[in-house]
Amino acid sequence: MNYEYSYLQQFIEQVFLSIGCPEADARLASQVLISADLRGVDSHGIARLSGYVRLYDHGRLNPNPSIKIVHETPSTAVVDGDKGLGLVVAPKAMEIAMKKAELVGSGWISVQNSNHFGIAGYHAMMALSSDMIGWAMTNAAPLVTPTFSKEKLLGTNPIAVAVPAATNPPFVADFASTAVAYGKMEILQRKGVPAPLGWVQDKDGNPTDDANAVKNGGALLPLGGDREHGSHKGYGLGAIVDIFSGVLSGANFGPWVPPFATAGFMSAGEQVGKGTGHFLGAMRIDGFRPADDFKADMDKWINRFRSAPAVEGKSVLIPGDPERVLEAERKANGIDLLDPVVKDLKGLADRFGIAFEA
Amino acid sequence: MNYEYSYLQQFIEQVFLSIGCPEADARLASQVLISADLRGVDSHGIARLSGYVRLYDHGRLNPNPSIKIVHETPSTAVVDGDKGLGLVVAPKAMEIAMKKAELVGSGWISVQNSNHFGIAGYHAMMALSSDMIGWAMTNAAPLVTPTFSKEKLLGTNPIAVAVPAATNPPFVADFASTAVAYGKMEILQRKGVPAPLGWVQDKDGNPTDDANAVKNGGALLPLGGDREHGSHKGYGLGAIVDIFSGVLSGANFGPWVPPFATAGFMSAGEQVGKGTGHFLGAMRIDGFRPADDFKADMDKWINRFRSAPAVEGKSVLIPGDPERVLEAERKANGIDLLDPVVKDLKGLADRFGIAFEA
Repeated sequence: MNYEYSYLQQFIEQVFLSIGCPEADARLASQVLISADLRGVDSHGIARLSGYVRLYDHGRLNPNPSIKIVHETPSTAVVDGDKGLGLVVAPKAMEIAMKKAELVGSGWISVQNSNHFGIAGYHAMMALSSDMIGWAMTNAAPLVTPTFSKEKLLGTNPIAVAVPAATNPPFVADFASTAVAYGKMEILQRKGVPAPLGWVQDKDGNPTDDANAVKNGGALLPLGGDREHGSHKGYGLGAIVDIFSGVLSGANFGPWVPPFATAGFMSAGEQVGKGTGHFLGAMRIDGFRPADDFKADMDKWINRFRSAPAVEGKSVLIPGDPERVLEAERKANGIDLLDPVVKDLKGLADRFGIAFEA
Repeated sequence: MNYEYSYLQQFIEQVFLSIGCPEADARLASQVLISADLRGVDSHGIARLSGYVRLYDHGRLNPNPSIKIVHETPSTAVVDGDKGLGLVVAPKAMEIAMKKAELVGSGWISVQNSNHFGIAGYHAMMALSSDMIGWAMTNAAPLVTPTFSKEKLLGTNPIAVAVPAATNPPFVADFASTAVAYGKMEILQRKGVPAPLGWVQDKDGNPTDDANAVKNGGALLPLGGDREHGSHKGYGLGAIVDIFSGVLSGANFGPWVPPFATAGFMSAGEQVGKGTGHFLGAMRIDGFRPADDFKADMDKWINRFRSAPAVEGKSVLIPGDPERVLEAERKANGIDLLDPVVKDLKGLADRFGIAFEA
């Protein structure tokens, strides 16, 4: 059964209202969360709604946070998310970044005391309509081993960069610093098929095709897979995201980043900082060159890449193309939810007395 | 035969003086170039000296450039390198970035009209002694195919990020957005051995172990190797570097970036901008939180990662570790040069009447 995205978004909003989020925050959070489902990042969308509620149940989520600038310069700041929804904290931090960019050309915000912020792409794309380049990163609980490590020390630590064009849709790169997203492992687990080599390692650090490796003490591999294929670069990238998001803000970092509730609630254990960290940035294009000139050149870039000769049956895509196609398709035809997700949502509907048709 | 690095550096300086560089520029360029040899990036060091001279011979290098800010805001600028040595233009742009960071928290400079800037790490590391995080990227002539492309559209487009710690040496990530550097292919070519799958593709876009693939119409692969292993992420990363360095500055971008002279001089052909582009950034740490607190946390980060359990016979390295070890070793024992490089340098010595012992 396919659900209208607007129906799901309203449901999300009502759940967030039910745990005490102010109206504007509940609406914003519902927009960010449903944008993941629309853009095909199903693991980061409505499937996580019950997880956010679990965070709230365990006192790790403040539904009505007082989001504050802790320290700032004209182009930089640390923002304290006050244990609020990352879905709300990150867009508010991005607004601060954009205000700074308006005033001094660029704004860079490192966020402490937050939690899962949904898809990085949403926050980066906020900059587009103001003719700015947007940048968003977040750290996350450890699932990934640095090159040669047997121990998981980094999250999947995504990076998103959004760049406007003139007549073309924008360039939107949004990717984890791993070979694959954990969501892909879950799909293999459901199908009961092995994983390609280069995605995961086992608990002893050996290559494996076990799709359950991460559950069995293994780990996701950094982008590159192994040392020979550049895993130290994927590790470096994930480390940069962790340092900018966690160490620079005073949030937790590395193996200390608290787990998101859906992975089973665990006590936070030792803390080296406050909550999860993000990093948001905005650069005004006309802080460099006239925006129209830049966007015309982006069109030239995009058209040139898109028209390059491709291997049989494929074409050269521009970052953001697949997500945009899915978004149009899902806005038109609705969003198909997996049975366990529907069951989860029904549970929330019962608990909060909200209607949910299934 | 091993050469003292200071001997080689003086030789480089004299060559740059001989083509008309001002004294301070020749010294700076020699420092940047030799730092590549010291840090083990032999392909980007003195081996390229004759290439820079060839650029000069072909009128593509201005030895005495007037490096200017074209447009700026308090935290951003475009700098015109006036066809100067990238080895000089990039550090000067980084100084501008650091001055802006001093004043408003961060500085971000996109550079047009430059050429090869040596190793990205040198420029990023300039920020360290001022308790700043340094960022350096550059585009380069096309050697890399986006995912599914048969045509080379991107350079190896490296990223370097340098972050200071307290008692530990700094974190210095410095890597190309490809599975491997082209220098590694050249080593395989000299040895006459095949390349691991996932490094290169042939002219039709098929996987190959031909170490000469790039010469035969093939290409280096983005980090990730193929789509299944995340090559679209490596492609996205290379694209971000290209857009920040080339499109944002008004330099050439994508397939239009002019080749460096050592790859055989080619006419520049169609130009969509001016020369090669770079992107340099500096963020003052105390624009976010007190530098001492941050550096103490970086020590915690580094110590935790370094002490993680590793696979048999290996250890978890911190980005920058291998280069720092090599630098100490080469400063102590000298630098071994390949015969073709020595021959090249002798040619320069003869031409400019400079002593060179071999």
